[in-house]
Amino acid sequence: MADADRKLSNGKSRIDFQTDPSKYRHWKLQVDGEVATLLMDVDEKGTLFEGYELKLNSYDLGVDIELADAIERLRFEHPQVKVILLRSGKPRVFCAGANIRMLAGATHAHKVNFCKFTNETRNGIEDASESSGLATICVINGTAAGGGYELALAADHIMLIDDGSSAVSLPELPLLAVLPGTGGLTRVTDKRKVRRDRADVFCTTEEGVKGKRAVEWRLVDEAVPGSKLEETVAKRAQEFAARSRRPSSAKGIALTPLEREHSADGVDYGSLSVELDRGARLATVTLRGPQEGPPASAEAMVEQGARFWPLALARELDDAMLDIRANEFEIAAVVFKSSGDPTQVLAYDEFLDANKDHWLAREIRGLWKRTLKRVDLTSRSLVALIEPGSCFAGTLAELVFATDRSYMLIGKLPGDNKPPATLALAGANFGAYPMSNRLSRLASRFLADPAELDRAQREIGKMLDAEAAQQLGLVTAALDDIDWDDEIRVFLEERASFSPDGLTGLEANLRFAGPETMESKIFARLTAWQNWIFQRPNAVGEEGALKRYGSGQKPAFDPRRV
Amino acid sequence: MADADRKLSNGKSRIDFQTDPSKYRHWKLQVDGEVATLLMDVDEKGTLFEGYELKLNSYDLGVDIELADAIERLRFEHPQVKVILLRSGKPRVFCAGANIRMLAGATHAHKVNFCKFTNETRNGIEDASESSGLATICVINGTAAGGGYELALAADHIMLIDDGSSAVSLPELPLLAVLPGTGGLTRVTDKRKVRRDRADVFCTTEEGVKGKRAVEWRLVDEAVPGSKLEETVAKRAQEFAARSRRPSSAKGIALTPLEREHSADGVDYGSLSVELDRGARLATVTLRGPQEGPPASAEAMVEQGARFWPLALARELDDAMLDIRANEFEIAAVVFKSSGDPTQVLAYDEFLDANKDHWLAREIRGLWKRTLKRVDLTSRSLVALIEPGSCFAGTLAELVFATDRSYMLIGKLPGDNKPPATLALAGANFGAYPMSNRLSRLASRFLADPAELDRAQREIGKMLDAEAAQQLGLVTAALDDIDWDDEIRVFLEERASFSPDGLTGLEANLRFAGPETMESKIFARLTAWQNWIFQRPNAVGEEGALKRYGSGQKPAFDPRRV
Repeated sequence: MADADRKLSNGKSRIDFQTDPSKYRHWKLQVDGEVATLLMDVDEKGTLFEGYELKLNSYDLGVDIELADAIERLRFEHPQVKVILLRSGKPRVFCAGANIRMLAGATHAHKVNFCKFTNETRNGIEDASESSGLATICVINGTAAGGGYELALAADHIMLIDDGSSAVSLPELPLLAVLPGTGGLTRVTDKRKVRRDRADVFCTTEEGVKGKRAVEWRLVDEAVPGSKLEETVAKRAQEFAARSRRPSSAKGIALTPLEREHSADGVDYGSLSVELDRGARLATVTLRGPQEGPPASAEAMVEQGARFWPLALARELDDAMLDIRANEFEIAAVVFKSSGDPTQVLAYDEFLDANKDHWLAREIRGLWKRTLKRVDLTSRSLVALIEPGSCFAGTLAELVFATDRSYMLIGKLPGDNKPPATLALAGANFGAYPMSNRLSRLASRFLADPAELDRAQREIGKMLDAEAAQQLGLVTAALDDIDWDDEIRVFLEERASFSPDGLTGLEANLRFAGPETMESKIFARLTAWQNWIFQRPNAVGEEGALKRYGSGQKPAFDPRRV
Repeated sequence: MADADRKLSNGKSRIDFQTDPSKYRHWKLQVDGEVATLLMDVDEKGTLFEGYELKLNSYDLGVDIELADAIERLRFEHPQVKVILLRSGKPRVFCAGANIRMLAGATHAHKVNFCKFTNETRNGIEDASESSGLATICVINGTAAGGGYELALAADHIMLIDDGSSAVSLPELPLLAVLPGTGGLTRVTDKRKVRRDRADVFCTTEEGVKGKRAVEWRLVDEAVPGSKLEETVAKRAQEFAARSRRPSSAKGIALTPLEREHSADGVDYGSLSVELDRGARLATVTLRGPQEGPPASAEAMVEQGARFWPLALARELDDAMLDIRANEFEIAAVVFKSSGDPTQVLAYDEFLDANKDHWLAREIRGLWKRTLKRVDLTSRSLVALIEPGSCFAGTLAELVFATDRSYMLIGKLPGDNKPPATLALAGANFGAYPMSNRLSRLASRFLADPAELDRAQREIGKMLDAEAAQQLGLVTAALDDIDWDDEIRVFLEERASFSPDGLTGLEANLRFAGPETMESKIFARLTAWQNWIFQRPNAVGEEGALKRYGSGQKPAFDPRRV
């Protein structure tokens, strides 16, 4: 199911995004006071799929799932850590990038999803620095090629050993006829701000650039002789730690394993369930509101730890979306529903607002931010149904604004006692969860007229009925019970009838109005071109570079430029 | 040559971008004082290729070449025109968009080039308004579907007849499984700022939106009853004319036919020549500096008209680039050379600066701006060779900064008497020719450090030798005569050996560092996704929507989302 054309290792039937350090096969996480060392030491045999080996610290999605997990754990379990040292556990090689045989044998859908997740992970590394003060220093003592250098590019500071041979490189184009698509090109131009002709030389030079030239060209921040490496690394770690606002004495919380039960047609979590109707190509994700009010204090929140409702739900939602993306390719639409007491949801938002300077509250808001961005980037049609008994308020209302369309029922459903549906806004809807364009979803929605945004802001905390929500422009349509079932059914059937590719392109455009940022450029300019190349015979055909790599045969290219 | 899989009409062997109103088959241009009417009345039989008919004002590249020509002529030949009324000459239909049979039968390369040119034309309509005060009012008295509505979106003001049936629509996704890729999605979200869920409804509704709802959703600016249409159009034209800064009494210049001679291996223009080495997959474009100094006055410039060197050269360069793009798909790299006196080139830049408020000087700078943007978007590797006898100064130096790499020779070549090459900057290099990111090419180049930009600016007017140019970061490499031939040869051979698709993606990323704008988003986010879709079987396969459209058979889609 995960990838029809290929078998997952060890007889697994789904790609699982949950792991923990006790299960890591590829990374070693060592925490020493303010400094954590994240050591990449890929187990060649520990592949996600059958049919290739992860030589030279090359990676597949399984390796990246561990990396993403490690970053999250540093954020939640080790709040006192201020600097991550990203290093290799192998001699003379930092990382050789995405495994080429894995890529060559992967379906198009898996390639695209693999790149999306690895991009999100690298964005997460940057977000940890920007939003939490958890900086990353990358120490390259060997070769960092392709995705290996792209991983380094996510760091705040790149150190390269100056030993006459260690180099950074992006050899994708000359070797494989594809792009450095895990943010590489965009970070070279927009983060490192490498001059474009130098970037051109760099990206077409297989062997890469080393030493002083790598510094001069802005590809790394410093080149350090081997004899001074450890001393300099320690010094840099100290400097970055000194600038961090992370709490030196806070005690982390344990990200305990998710409560999760898979069945043939869905998944049940503690506060969320996924129901799959594969015939209709629908996944219904129902989010459940809190069972009780927020804790009395930040300390009580820490005490609750991973059970604290906003944190539990964010982790579950994140896992659910990743599961659908990676394992359920034929699902056309994700329908979001909710159940619970919206006033309780608002109470949690107020609690997080009141404690916004507490490290854990900040991390939880940050996790929601990243999870909502993951929703934005999910290439399935997204729909919210706001029905009696739902609790789309504050943070949960943000999901409504993340969807392509939202429908809200006017009044009650026949034979149903629940009071009419409400939608409620909180301060969190106006800035806590920026999209990749750095605007809130409501600001993006009301790009045409800031007055509409102001008008919505004045309704914070009110329980808005369907007509009020429609009036404010917060939902696509308010429907009465006579139209409800038919309208929704017809819409979902229509959605399933359209070209899945056309919808992917349409949604990737309509969801991201307004400004672009480096982050959004990675998913637009870079990823869209890479996906195009991933379709081209020059890369993926039988005579293409990706297929012929390592075969001893040169690729045969169609010489026409388009 | 133009399109291997398809025959050009009338036995032609190349697509020709030159035309004039006496040859138009699809447009009628009427000028009446301050107001011009551009009437679309497509000749069904007047197709560029054989094998389809242009029904219902649908268009192919040939129709758009005439449109682009008409807009240029209004800028140069009719400076007193302040408003263009864009209308249909057919009853009940404004324009049905790009012709579907043409698209279905086109090669991938032609589709991509067709979309690129039509996008540039629509950007040109917007630029005429922004840069020259030549506004466009689109009057839709019928249906404007797909590319028809996208054309309307380029206007400053869209009027829709409110007759109960006339509608605007973007039915590409439901009908054809492709995107509204001629700027449609981006202008809906970023120019019209349509709310995203409404945009989603609009783009998935075949029949489109009409009347008051089209206004409410911001899809058009006004819906006008038929009885009041002409009166309202006249009123709007007056209003827009009153806001224009175009000169009421200026006399235009004639854009006379280009002097142009095609041979088997190139083209010769008055001030430019193209030499094709198809074996090496190279086009060498040599720009020739002026034969004499600038005229004594703006009036004398007007007198010279189309012979005025900067104007003649811009038109020739534009035509040459379009010719290579559309007719020479196997050319891997375009090498820019120049010959002439750089001080003369600078003298012309000073002349244009001194007359920058004169309408013709403004139009000429505007044409250079658009032509240079066309170069930026040309998906071939771009190289500048700065050799003894060249005149890369001011406006011509801008081409050096538009290339992927530039090489400059140190000193003389053996056996050559010409003095060493120089490169010279002018004020024009610091703002007259913004890229689509709204930065100058030098500002984009020195994104990392504005001090480098300042340093370059202090060198305005100086004749910089190779070492100075390299020192200032203006060229990729300065090479002496011992290395020159070999380095260039190896580089060009290497370029020709890489995957043409990989290079297209690489260059599309490295050339556009920094901010994105609506214009750049059209060529990045929108176009790149569209090109991906243009590769997908769901659109272009034998069972795909584009192939099956009009056959009575429904398309069969692979249901997997990627």
